[in-house]
Amino acid sequence: MSKIRDFKLEGLVPAVFTPMTTDGAIDYDKIDAYSRYLSDLGVKQVFLNGTTGEGFSLTLDERKKIVETWVRVGKESGRIRDIVVHVGSLNMHDSQELAKHAAVAGVDAIATVPPLFFKPSKLEYIVEYCKKIAEAAPNVPFYYYHIPTMTGVEVNIEDFLVMASKEIPSLVGAKFSSKDLVDFLGCTQLTAPNRSDSKYNLMFGCDEQLMAAMVMGGHGSVGSTPNLMWGTMARVLQLTAQGNFPEARKEQLRCQKTVRIMLKYGPQLGGNVAALKAILALVGMDTGPPRAPMRAPSAEEARAIKADLNAIGFFNWDNQPATNLAS
Amino acid sequence: MSKIRDFKLEGLVPAVFTPMTTDGAIDYDKIDAYSRYLSDLGVKQVFLNGTTGEGFSLTLDERKKIVETWVRVGKESGRIRDIVVHVGSLNMHDSQELAKHAAVAGVDAIATVPPLFFKPSKLEYIVEYCKKIAEAAPNVPFYYYHIPTMTGVEVNIEDFLVMASKEIPSLVGAKFSSKDLVDFLGCTQLTAPNRSDSKYNLMFGCDEQLMAAMVMGGHGSVGSTPNLMWGTMARVLQLTAQGNFPEARKEQLRCQKTVRIMLKYGPQLGGNVAALKAILALVGMDTGPPRAPMRAPSAEEARAIKADLNAIGFFNWDNQPATNLAS
Amino acid sequence: MSKIRDFKLEGLVPAVFTPMTTDGAIDYDKIDAYSRYLSDLGVKQVFLNGTTGEGFSLTLDERKKIVETWVRVGKESGRIRDIVVHVGSLNMHDSQELAKHAAVAGVDAIATVPPLFFKPSKLEYIVEYCKKIAEAAPNVPFYYYHIPTMTGVEVNIEDFLVMASKEIPSLVGAKFSSKDLVDFLGCTQLTAPNRSDSKYNLMFGCDEQLMAAMVMGGHGSVGSTPNLMWGTMARVLQLTAQGNFPEARKEQLRCQKTVRIMLKYGPQLGGNVAALKAILALVGMDTGPPRAPMRAPSAEEARAIKADLNAIGFFNWDNQPATNLAS
Amino acid sequence: MSKIRDFKLEGLVPAVFTPMTTDGAIDYDKIDAYSRYLSDLGVKQVFLNGTTGEGFSLTLDERKKIVETWVRVGKESGRIRDIVVHVGSLNMHDSQELAKHAAVAGVDAIATVPPLFFKPSKLEYIVEYCKKIAEAAPNVPFYYYHIPTMTGVEVNIEDFLVMASKEIPSLVGAKFSSKDLVDFLGCTQLTAPNRSDSKYNLMFGCDEQLMAAMVMGGHGSVGSTPNLMWGTMARVLQLTAQGNFPEARKEQLRCQKTVRIMLKYGPQLGGNVAALKAILALVGMDTGPPRAPMRAPSAEEARAIKADLNAIGFFNWDNQPATNLAS
Repeated sequence: MSKIRDFKLEGLVPAVFTPMTTDGAIDYDKIDAYSRYLSDLGVKQVFLNGTTGEGFSLTLDERKKIVETWVRVGKESGRIRDIVVHVGSLNMHDSQELAKHAAVAGVDAIATVPPLFFKPSKLEYIVEYCKKIAEAAPNVPFYYYHIPTMTGVEVNIEDFLVMASKEIPSLVGAKFSSKDLVDFLGCTQLTAPNRSDSKYNLMFGCDEQLMAAMVMGGHGSVGSTPNLMWGTMARVLQLTAQGNFPEARKEQLRCQKTVRIMLKYGPQLGGNVAALKAILALVGMDTGPPRAPMRAPSAEEARAIKADLNAIGFFNWDNQPATNLAS
Repeated sequence: MSKIRDFKLEGLVPAVFTPMTTDGAIDYDKIDAYSRYLSDLGVKQVFLNGTTGEGFSLTLDERKKIVETWVRVGKESGRIRDIVVHVGSLNMHDSQELAKHAAVAGVDAIATVPPLFFKPSKLEYIVEYCKKIAEAAPNVPFYYYHIPTMTGVEVNIEDFLVMASKEIPSLVGAKFSSKDLVDFLGCTQLTAPNRSDSKYNLMFGCDEQLMAAMVMGGHGSVGSTPNLMWGTMARVLQLTAQGNFPEARKEQLRCQKTVRIMLKYGPQLGGNVAALKAILALVGMDTGPPRAPMRAPSAEEARAIKADLNAIGFFNWDNQPATNLAS
Repeated sequence: MSKIRDFKLEGLVPAVFTPMTTDGAIDYDKIDAYSRYLSDLGVKQVFLNGTTGEGFSLTLDERKKIVETWVRVGKESGRIRDIVVHVGSLNMHDSQELAKHAAVAGVDAIATVPPLFFKPSKLEYIVEYCKKIAEAAPNVPFYYYHIPTMTGVEVNIEDFLVMASKEIPSLVGAKFSSKDLVDFLGCTQLTAPNRSDSKYNLMFGCDEQLMAAMVMGGHGSVGSTPNLMWGTMARVLQLTAQGNFPEARKEQLRCQKTVRIMLKYGPQLGGNVAALKAILALVGMDTGPPRAPMRAPSAEEARAIKADLNAIGFFNWDNQPATNLAS
Repeated sequence: MSKIRDFKLEGLVPAVFTPMTTDGAIDYDKIDAYSRYLSDLGVKQVFLNGTTGEGFSLTLDERKKIVETWVRVGKESGRIRDIVVHVGSLNMHDSQELAKHAAVAGVDAIATVPPLFFKPSKLEYIVEYCKKIAEAAPNVPFYYYHIPTMTGVEVNIEDFLVMASKEIPSLVGAKFSSKDLVDFLGCTQLTAPNRSDSKYNLMFGCDEQLMAAMVMGGHGSVGSTPNLMWGTMARVLQLTAQGNFPEARKEQLRCQKTVRIMLKYGPQLGGNVAALKAILALVGMDTGPPRAPMRAPSAEEARAIKADLNAIGFFNWDNQPATNLAS
């Protein structure tokens, strides 16, 4: 169990996209190039099959094969050190199956959202649900994936951690994709007896206010923007840690301006991931179209996105591999 | 296509529960007794694998086998005339697979919820999503399953029907589980050229205000309470149709009092279906416990539910097969 | 107290607009013509200073003078039999002052919304708040004004009536401006001992689903559309009472189409009352512009509203005084 | 206008409570002692008649007399340097009257919430509304008071500032009582031409995540907790400015624990201000009970609040005047 406790995500951990072909199939072959692209930026840890990865739009077989491919081309090549796999789904049995598969495939950690349709009315039911999934891969570090705007499940994560830690030996922390920094501080201030550091590994998921989460005690980001603007996000972390708030705010603002463009185009494309995939292609890493209910931008829409990015100076910001400050 | 157009749900159509064993497995054998129970009440049409049926908590294989079992023991025996199957899931591919299977299995209609995680921001994406599922079973009548409190997808169904009718030849109507009677009237008043009756088959899903939906032009109910109190719900329909509002209200109020008990115990059991299954067992049809994130009531809780039902007179209401007014 | 209990609103009770001049002042003189316009339609009872009357945008002095004017030109002339005054405001003291004034002015009933800023977390605080206002006019029948979409205060009105009836001797009922017909039925089915009729006077406020509320046991409508389309709304009541649902639905649909136009233009004018005042002017009763934060439509917008009304046939519907079916 | 531009709130600015007697009247005499209490802590600027001050539960006359009293006993005595007055109400005319009065009374700035009942659907209507209030006191610095959880008006404040700055010459900033730090950063990064500091004065209102707001560029807090725990909140500011995040988090956590107690008792007392007044009394400054719809705690409830505060160590934290770090 000590090996589980030692696992930790930190700094910038991209939630990776799922490469697809224009006919809607998974483009497994593209993962090799994508893992090299990320490794060149300085990425050491990735999060698979989450919201950014459209995990909820994939079949069980596709999700498994994506895991296997990342383990092979990312991890075994030495490019990516740690792989976290999201195993949340519509029913507990599927998630247990994905958890077991992830363990056998050799991933480093798993994560899950709570039930998506029958939303638990009490915290204990979420804990119980997660426990049964975690037990399917008892030796794999377990994260709760908190993203209430998508799941509709509002739960206090500090309360969850306290209750779940008694039930789930493999619990190590949470991917916290909510803007509620009050709850977040409560989480980071939970400590083990006779320890001053956080008992849990708390990764923030709303890149657009990452610097605020870091001063509240977060360990880093599991998000999508590191894929697109690694240098900017790395400087957010570095400058905040240095207490250089004025400069950190400038970098954080760049992130927000980019997110605003995502929010401008996402709705008309059926979802924000569609806009993010389009931006990623513009910086040189084409992962193809998203899957329904989203769609790729038309040529005209893609030009508009590029023009908007140009207008905020996006392409002039230093986001090249050489600027890797977080590694 | 005319055969599709002729299909119609009407009156009381129970959304059926999924029988389970105490170890959480599906109790396929129990479906025989359950179909006989319903048939004895006068049921002619059923809705499978929806919210009541915990369809969202079942694996694809389980959902398929449930369909096959109902077709065999319910339909082939002549007990149940029509079977509608909910094929909604977390991703379009699984739903297409379920739709194809339902067609081969010989069901009479299918239905689906919209995407549950990536909630479409525009109506056209919901239509497009449904279209691709409907196309997997092009000769099977298709219903949209509208249940915004659970899915988080608020969409105007009148607008949906108008737009979807151009894209989905097999569209016949909607299961409308929302209390918004303004939208519902808009739907029932959509008529075919030179026709005065509704162009779409509109089944209401909130039993506790069924009589209001009927005067607004609904064709009946697809809900859970007909399982529990067939006579009461049948009298709601009959008395409303007769314009006998004072008596209809008394029956409707009985339904509401029962629903209030469901709402009292549902949250502490992890979900309302858990409470409903407990009530169904009390009237003689035991379908076992629900699946996580719900749980069965304890012996003490079950006694409390029974006492509350007793207090409202539930067991004295005429809900026996002989009172079947809707058949 | 028996005199209080005998008071009853029924049928169509227009929530009246507040006439204003183009410079934003109250046009008290216009109330004479307006009361004659309503009386000619067949109106017997009116509701003052509510949402339609922009009561929340008026000063205390203005609200008092409006009451005095209606009592004089409406009631003393014999045109309007009963006047109900909304006395809700931001603080209890102002509402008590308005209640006292209404009593002295000779109105027939008062009504209030709950606290608007410090929204009570428990039902008992709403009851206590209402009690203190009702006590300022103890001999005047008291209504709770339930309009949760505007106030943000979600409360079960059945529970309110049961609790408040023990504290507020002058309580007679509620103006129920919510689409929740489950709660509404619960309210209408509350009866006095050894009585079968409703203990409370329940007036519905969402005209667009009025017929559903009537079969649920409502006594009529306090709303804005009777100002604009008296005949249509009167036929909704009459046809529903007759059990002629197909024809009632046609009239109800006309109401909804008109409301849809209100909802189309309301937001761009700062609020729905702005659109309604514009429509009222088009049918011959000009009550001037609304007050900030709303504005009157531009000439171009007014033409567009008229064109949209024309397109649904609004001006061809029989809404003349002679068609008064509800009087 | 340059004098207006020079006005600035910074550091800890208590939103002050309104002292009341047990019979519900305003205890104007108590303001003298209260202003001395605050001055002894090191307070230089205060915010009157806002949420903490129950401004929304007071009559116009009461609000005016409170302003006059604070100007006299607080400002003219030299104890309090700057007084900001909230003038928001239910209607524009009352707010204009309060703004005029505030100007004559000699306050340093005014603030307003947007319309509370007719919630503007478009930003331009909020701007127009505020403009008309600001124009009633054209030489007094104007703040927008953003508190969407209470008002129900969700508006992007960055967009508001940009639009309003063209219409309202006296606009200087916002009291930002929302946890949305994305919008907050957007606001702080608005700069005047050729300037690097914020163009607007941005005071944060959610004390429980104050340190995060400060790194995002906030200028301080207008909140209630500085009344209760000045030293703690002052250290939050000081330690955050020093980049000493681990120690700052400890102080911030103390604030959160106190807020959790407020949230535990607030609902049963009718509102959070009731709980805060009770805590303030426990630290030696009794401002009496709150006004309806809130109530003071019973003796038993007061003991429970004290016990809970004891359990978190509240009374051992250094919150004495001598610890004044922010003055």
